[in-house]
Amino acid sequence: SSLLHDLNEPLIEHAEGQLFLTETFKIILEEVLCKGTDVKEKVCEWKEPEELAVLLDLELRDTGEPQGKLLKRVKDVAKYSIKTSHPRFFNQLFAGVDYHSMAGRFLTEALNTNLYTYEIAPVFVLVEAEVLRGMHRLVGWTEGDGIFCPGGSISNMYAMNLARYQLFPEIKSRGLWGLPRLTIFTSAESHYSVKKGAALLGIGTDHVILVKVDDGGRMIPEDLEEKIKLAKSEGSVPFLVSCTSGTTVKGAFDPLDHIANLCEKYMLWMHVDAAWGGSVLFSSKHRHLMKGVDRANSVAWNPHKMLVAGLQCSALLLRDTTNLLKRCHSASATYLFQQDKFYDVNLDTGDKSVQCSRKVDCLKLWLMWKAVGSAGLEARVDKAFIHARYLVEQMKKREGFHLLGEPEFVNVCFWYIPPSLRGKEENADYQEQLSKVKGTMMVGYQPQENRVNFFRVVAFSPLISQKDMDFFLNEIERLGKNM
Amino acid sequence: SSLLHDLNEPLIEHAEGQLFLTETFKIILEEVLCKGTDVKEKVCEWKEPEELAVLLDLELRDTGEPQGKLLKRVKDVAKYSIKTSHPRFFNQLFAGVDYHSMAGRFLTEALNTNLYTYEIAPVFVLVEAEVLRGMHRLVGWTEGDGIFCPGGSISNMYAMNLARYQLFPEIKSRGLWGLPRLTIFTSAESHYSVKKGAALLGIGTDHVILVKVDDGGRMIPEDLEEKIKLAKSEGSVPFLVSCTSGTTVKGAFDPLDHIANLCEKYMLWMHVDAAWGGSVLFSSKHRHLMKGVDRANSVAWNPHKMLVAGLQCSALLLRDTTNLLKRCHSASATYLFQQDKFYDVNLDTGDKSVQCSRKVDCLKLWLMWKAVGSAGLEARVDKAFIHARYLVEQMKKREGFHLLGEPEFVNVCFWYIPPSLRGKEENADYQEQLSKVKGTMMVGYQPQENRVNFFRVVAFSPLISQKDMDFFLNEIERLGKNM
Repeated sequence: SSLLHDLNEPLIEHAEGQLFLTETFKIILEEVLCKGTDVKEKVCEWKEPEELAVLLDLELRDTGEPQGKLLKRVKDVAKYSIKTSHPRFFNQLFAGVDYHSMAGRFLTEALNTNLYTYEIAPVFVLVEAEVLRGMHRLVGWTEGDGIFCPGGSISNMYAMNLARYQLFPEIKSRGLWGLPRLTIFTSAESHYSVKKGAALLGIGTDHVILVKVDDGGRMIPEDLEEKIKLAKSEGSVPFLVSCTSGTTVKGAFDPLDHIANLCEKYMLWMHVDAAWGGSVLFSSKHRHLMKGVDRANSVAWNPHKMLVAGLQCSALLLRDTTNLLKRCHSASATYLFQQDKFYDVNLDTGDKSVQCSRKVDCLKLWLMWKAVGSAGLEARVDKAFIHARYLVEQMKKREGFHLLGEPEFVNVCFWYIPPSLRGKEENADYQEQLSKVKGTMMVGYQPQENRVNFFRVVAFSPLISQKDMDFFLNEIERLGKNM
Repeated sequence: SSLLHDLNEPLIEHAEGQLFLTETFKIILEEVLCKGTDVKEKVCEWKEPEELAVLLDLELRDTGEPQGKLLKRVKDVAKYSIKTSHPRFFNQLFAGVDYHSMAGRFLTEALNTNLYTYEIAPVFVLVEAEVLRGMHRLVGWTEGDGIFCPGGSISNMYAMNLARYQLFPEIKSRGLWGLPRLTIFTSAESHYSVKKGAALLGIGTDHVILVKVDDGGRMIPEDLEEKIKLAKSEGSVPFLVSCTSGTTVKGAFDPLDHIANLCEKYMLWMHVDAAWGGSVLFSSKHRHLMKGVDRANSVAWNPHKMLVAGLQCSALLLRDTTNLLKRCHSASATYLFQQDKFYDVNLDTGDKSVQCSRKVDCLKLWLMWKAVGSAGLEARVDKAFIHARYLVEQMKKREGFHLLGEPEFVNVCFWYIPPSLRGKEENADYQEQLSKVKGTMMVGYQPQENRVNFFRVVAFSPLISQKDMDFFLNEIERLGKNM
């Protein structure tokens, strides 16, 4: 290759590279963290895909580009990306920014290692264990096991795999053949990853039995028991109930204590998908929503959501103390998990994972937790509840807002019927109008059978205040006026 | 909560937070990127777990800590972590640092979004598509599909799931029950993730048939064909051959063209695990190692390895143009993948994934590729080969070095027998000695049946030069002298 001059010359020049990184850091501070969180700036500089592709000059070429041009690209990426830390970003179950977490994330990237052995990640192996211990305590366990996974969906799949392995350990070597049909139970409003997991694990989505929910979106235990009995009578083997603490749309909490009784009665693995709701465990005021969680076998909890730990940060917590996680997932690769090391090889946690390369997702949470303490994280959770309550009260006072129900968590679901459409609600394509005026704020919506779309607003970023709530309500009204 | 003063006050103060982030950035520059790449500094400040736990003050408490103390923690994390960018870090299949990639990684962290819809990640949806196009071209495809996954193991599992879904689409809903036994073929030296995947997917590790390898570690096609025939004669249904381009230990490349003939003959999905070796596709000189890869159905390739794109960066590439990936994995969640959006919903790539939250892993690769061009990445690959060749030639000239074989890639596997142990090689516990003197360099090793451990050195970081190779050889000799 013509670029290859001399073996004695590294291909990368540190001084130039560090200058580029420093310039990028300035752009990040200015464009993403200052402007990107400024209410006077837009949440989003919306472009159609074709136009954006041209603006970014996407094409990858044979020759490289000069530093100045590359810095322009960094700026453009920042400019045209959604500002998810903006106080008027209400679109997703992540939002906001925590600077200590961000510092932990930059440090993680710079240290560039894999969380599989103590040898290669000594600090992170210990930090992960400590963070998991802290989360265990909040669940109500004095011991246990766990691992950080790339997202809550994978955490839920791990729980499924562990549950079936505990029941039929031979599945690891022999597969599902020869075993009876296995069935999973979850509420009709649970996250779609339960079905995705059942498909991936060879169980099949037909064997995910959807349990009815009450008006608030909570699993109905009586229906669960009926469906367990029915499945058994049909020759299937129920093995797992996947409960939800904080459903995606309505934010409902399944009644864990009641479900735990049934799991004990029928000897089923009890998993709690608390990816969204788990953070209530920090709050002495609100943790009652998860009463009974200590009776679960596994809990999936994503601190990248309400706690603002940054994507991705997702823990699977296990009550198990028999090394089930490692027994279920290990392959004992000799090139990596050598048994003749000069330290305790139980610190080599990599074989607990189905991944080989595994990103370090724990440092940012540890540093953030160190910075504000459990009390600071509790305040974030309590503040989110107060904002949600404020929104609900305001919506009740203002015309045109119709709540889907009284929220028990921080998801506020509502319709808004603009003045011109009142009385003819069925024709309201208000959502489409709102979509066209992105920029001032972003909010999620949800289609519903036989009715127009409703909105879901989740206001939990620690950056926001009551005036952002007022802005939200006023903006919905303002946009509606022009219809 | 006592920390919750006023709804109108955000819980996070930007100025203070940005100052902390700026101070952390300085520490990263100084400790990780300057000292961490300086050959006069240690690769690793080794501490035993118990001591390190005390040094880090791991405990998570109720109250937060002052900024100064937190900055001390940032410094300690940097100090006691392994310096994987150090020129004498030869331990893993990742090493080195690329500053453009690092800039892309910091920017990705700051923008904190999920790669699932165009609405929430417009820039990244387009960037991912462009990077995948570039990789497709290198494989030799003019079109195709693909997705970035959290590591090569998950990419390999995706390939398995796609292969069986293509053969039996009903598996998604009905599971494996009622289907014949499915078998996977892979070489005896393939990565352990093939077995992990088979276990997770309910296929079982017994149904992963290990094909014999030649002395170089390459799959023997004749043995593959025999084993396919045997499996069929026993009533199993072969559906997938997982080839390896660049095995983990020896760096062997399976003969893809020959295997492709068999896959066509027996109508099997041909997957290529090129997590480690895929980067040879950039090199006009070395891409012949993967001749026939364009005939594969899927290719897993990790630019976080040889290309130094940073952990994690792992692509699954597909020849398919029938939307198989989405059909196999989709759950069509209505709250996220609404069909009434005002842009082309094919840009919402999230339903191609088994994840929901999915990290943005493409920007860093795109920015690095833009910066040095395909030619610059080719130079990295060629340089790694030259270093490996140099090491091999030197080992042949020096006493005590015994090569495991003539490498075809950049993995150089060897024994070193110190002077005092020559003639009594069977007693050599040299590896243990080396383990105790960590600090000057790090190198991986591999137990082998009936013989002493051998070393695997992989020297591909673009930061290194011939003098780092000389240092490596001299250091091995120096440590051996004291035994």
